[in-house]
Amino acid sequence: MKVKLGNNVTIIDDKGKKFVINITKGAKKVKGLGIINSEEFIGNRYGEVLEIGNKKCVILPASSKDYIDCLKRKAQIILPKDSAQIIMNCSIKSGDKVVEIGSGSGALTIALAKTVAPNGKVISYDKRKDFIEIAQYNIEKAGLEKYVEFKLKDAKNGIDEKNIDSIIMDIPEPWELVDIAWGSLKIGGYFCSYSPLISQVEKTVKKLREHPFVEVYVLETLQREMIVLEKGVRPSFNMLGHTGYLTFARKTLAKVRV
Amino acid sequence: MKVKLGNNVTIIDDKGKKFVINITKGAKKVKGLGIINSEEFIGNRYGEVLEIGNKKCVILPASSKDYIDCLKRKAQIILPKDSAQIIMNCSIKSGDKVVEIGSGSGALTIALAKTVAPNGKVISYDKRKDFIEIAQYNIEKAGLEKYVEFKLKDAKNGIDEKNIDSIIMDIPEPWELVDIAWGSLKIGGYFCSYSPLISQVEKTVKKLREHPFVEVYVLETLQREMIVLEKGVRPSFNMLGHTGYLTFARKTLAKVRV
Amino acid sequence: MKVKLGNNVTIIDDKGKKFVINITKGAKKVKGLGIINSEEFIGNRYGEVLEIGNKKCVILPASSKDYIDCLKRKAQIILPKDSAQIIMNCSIKSGDKVVEIGSGSGALTIALAKTVAPNGKVISYDKRKDFIEIAQYNIEKAGLEKYVEFKLKDAKNGIDEKNIDSIIMDIPEPWELVDIAWGSLKIGGYFCSYSPLISQVEKTVKKLREHPFVEVYVLETLQREMIVLEKGVRPSFNMLGHTGYLTFARKTLAKVRV
Amino acid sequence: MKVKLGNNVTIIDDKGKKFVINITKGAKKVKGLGIINSEEFIGNRYGEVLEIGNKKCVILPASSKDYIDCLKRKAQIILPKDSAQIIMNCSIKSGDKVVEIGSGSGALTIALAKTVAPNGKVISYDKRKDFIEIAQYNIEKAGLEKYVEFKLKDAKNGIDEKNIDSIIMDIPEPWELVDIAWGSLKIGGYFCSYSPLISQVEKTVKKLREHPFVEVYVLETLQREMIVLEKGVRPSFNMLGHTGYLTFARKTLAKVRV
Repeated sequence: MKVKLGNNVTIIDDKGKKFVINITKGAKKVKGLGIINSEEFIGNRYGEVLEIGNKKCVILPASSKDYIDCLKRKAQIILPKDSAQIIMNCSIKSGDKVVEIGSGSGALTIALAKTVAPNGKVISYDKRKDFIEIAQYNIEKAGLEKYVEFKLKDAKNGIDEKNIDSIIMDIPEPWELVDIAWGSLKIGGYFCSYSPLISQVEKTVKKLREHPFVEVYVLETLQREMIVLEKGVRPSFNMLGHTGYLTFARKTLAKVRV
Repeated sequence: MKVKLGNNVTIIDDKGKKFVINITKGAKKVKGLGIINSEEFIGNRYGEVLEIGNKKCVILPASSKDYIDCLKRKAQIILPKDSAQIIMNCSIKSGDKVVEIGSGSGALTIALAKTVAPNGKVISYDKRKDFIEIAQYNIEKAGLEKYVEFKLKDAKNGIDEKNIDSIIMDIPEPWELVDIAWGSLKIGGYFCSYSPLISQVEKTVKKLREHPFVEVYVLETLQREMIVLEKGVRPSFNMLGHTGYLTFARKTLAKVRV
Repeated sequence: MKVKLGNNVTIIDDKGKKFVINITKGAKKVKGLGIINSEEFIGNRYGEVLEIGNKKCVILPASSKDYIDCLKRKAQIILPKDSAQIIMNCSIKSGDKVVEIGSGSGALTIALAKTVAPNGKVISYDKRKDFIEIAQYNIEKAGLEKYVEFKLKDAKNGIDEKNIDSIIMDIPEPWELVDIAWGSLKIGGYFCSYSPLISQVEKTVKKLREHPFVEVYVLETLQREMIVLEKGVRPSFNMLGHTGYLTFARKTLAKVRV
Repeated sequence: MKVKLGNNVTIIDDKGKKFVINITKGAKKVKGLGIINSEEFIGNRYGEVLEIGNKKCVILPASSKDYIDCLKRKAQIILPKDSAQIIMNCSIKSGDKVVEIGSGSGALTIALAKTVAPNGKVISYDKRKDFIEIAQYNIEKAGLEKYVEFKLKDAKNGIDEKNIDSIIMDIPEPWELVDIAWGSLKIGGYFCSYSPLISQVEKTVKKLREHPFVEVYVLETLQREMIVLEKGVRPSFNMLGHTGYLTFARKTLAKVRV
């Protein structure tokens, strides 16, 4: 397979640093690579090593993980370790209709969109225009715009969708939207909120327990890299101490526990 | 939405215990529920509470997570926390062709199959007939048999597929299949092995480094539940100390680092 | 060194199970060992293997860790992983005067007492007679009674000591004793509270911040065993998900941050 | 209590930064505080706030934890979270004779010395003169020189002490000293090695199992700070992913498991 004009490609340099660019005519500046003329890569085979600037690099077709790893960021994003758990615990699959409250920079949006494609849809609400714009930019760069609809609206005033498969929230007061979430979900549909603070988790869970939801639980996921050296293996010294707690629940019509 | 004959349903009791059953005519024994006549549920609305045995239960349409949670097990399975990371870090998506080496009880197979559906395929190798049989049973119960092909073969003797998007291994000696994996993957395709022991990780990473692979890294994922009590919140006392390390890599044509 | 009448000895069996007993005349029943006549061990060399019941066992002089590991328990104890952090972060040393609020079963009391010996003192308050009794039993078994004074009193009504080096609390409402703690500590002395719930931590820290304390911080310590097998190494599957948070602070005369 | 000439004092500034200095005549430069005339602090009450440079600071009597926190470092030190576990799991107490192999910068040496004081002794070996010098500097600054004897020797050639209570190693090949350790320990005495790599742990444990040792186990300790904000509580984003594994064992005369 060869690089063609218009392709989205991933460049990985000899330090492991990664860049996602679109193959266009003419020179462009890429932060970390300098000024490059991506047109020159056309006709190269994917997977081969070539010199870019003074570095040896390899060019690969861009994957959805690459788009997330190389996202243009405005705010703190939901990291792959957590979006993976959201998709798994909410059973999100191809064809699903998923509402996201809080588009942010679109990192979770990409992960959701590639999961519901080709027949599903992500509807992503944000009340801030600047967030919608950056999320839209990132979604378009990833070529996933067919699967995402952005809505510049405060979801606290209600959401338009009914009978959705899942609703995922990354907002400061998720407990305020538990009513709205319940109303929009299909029976058996999944609620998830992402919250950095314990107090947010507590309020959300207590609100969820007032409504007909089952399988209400909260997960924290920690991830650590293992480093394989010539002389042996050890965990990485670098580890992120915390991102957010994930609160899950599933809609029913009546409460099981009274 | 109402329960119909032939539906796969999830029953959740008032202790949070979960059962996946098929709605059939006649009585059947379900471990933990006793003898039930599932026919009686026909016509009930999903999400409503009904009494089964002496317990209040709710009936929901079965989700892919339910199938995994209620799997018939023969060996230790790859848990959702880890299969979520595999799918995310290998960028697996709808339409992908994925090879799994080591079907086990089919827990990861279900997660992979629901991700590649409706146009993709999982090809799952195992050299033990009893594992293939239980995995097949679980896949069929989950209604995902269209997306999975089982092969009763020792993958060490080679695999038939070429140009695959990802290859995932849950076998004792993944390093012995690095050659075969490289040969079968498309450029930019993902390798993943799941291994409980550090020595397995070490051997696999060293073998991967001899081949043209980039983005070689190893992750350990720990997950802990948070418990919301009336008087406050605390982490769960129960926590699984270890499952397996995940080793990832991505195929290129030449090595970037010399 | 040989076993003598009156010695406290640690017996470790071939499964690694540990028992602390006193060498006395006559038969006694030890849970897990059956009926033994400890007099028979007299004259044996410490460290030698002997048969007790049908098990091969080794006899060692009892250490303070043995006393803690083999404690008679009434309530949940503060585990060695946490008492180690308390002693380190409160800089507790030989000669210190330390107040403990909440004797519990005396596990922390043993660790404190062996640290302040031979010239220091632990004063341990509990409002429940049954706890004092069991703690006293355990302290006497460990031969540390010279270094501990128990007080059957509710510390909320005040404590008698002044100018103490450290005060350690394992009670449900540590924030209610922040005033009393400040009043009793010497300048630069250490406050520590052990709390399972986040809400307890939050209230205690907020109360500490109203008083002249510096170095206010909260630690959670997780510990996991590594298992060395013939075929390789892995973390233990067994791991305690949570014990308690440790809140530390240090007395000053005026607040540094305004 | 007032500051006097010759005192070791801890200065904590309004950002929580900490400095240990000796009160001397004349100006001196302290990194982070600038040029200060410590003589001026004489007569101030400990615990009061005073202005140093342009910062509000509090002065406290220096504790052993302060000496460790403010150590002059040459190499990576053993952190308090780990030295706490060493002292606890080796049952180290006042009066003990402890051998340390690998003085490093003396961080563990301080923790050991303050534990064995006033009647015990730490004998600390290092084959590098520069390490002994810096460790000696730090021990003297902490006023613990009475309790420590440094030996500029490669312990692989043997150690002089017999019948010691504990031996603690922070060296690259602890397995090479298992014989020597066994020979020097008293019956029931404790062995501990600190190792960053799994391969070091594996070799050490396998060597220990060839000798008469019981209670052979390996611990990893993770510590995370909890942050109490006005709006709620969350774990710290900063967390050290790894320091070292601690391998423990205890000397007997014969092996219990055959």
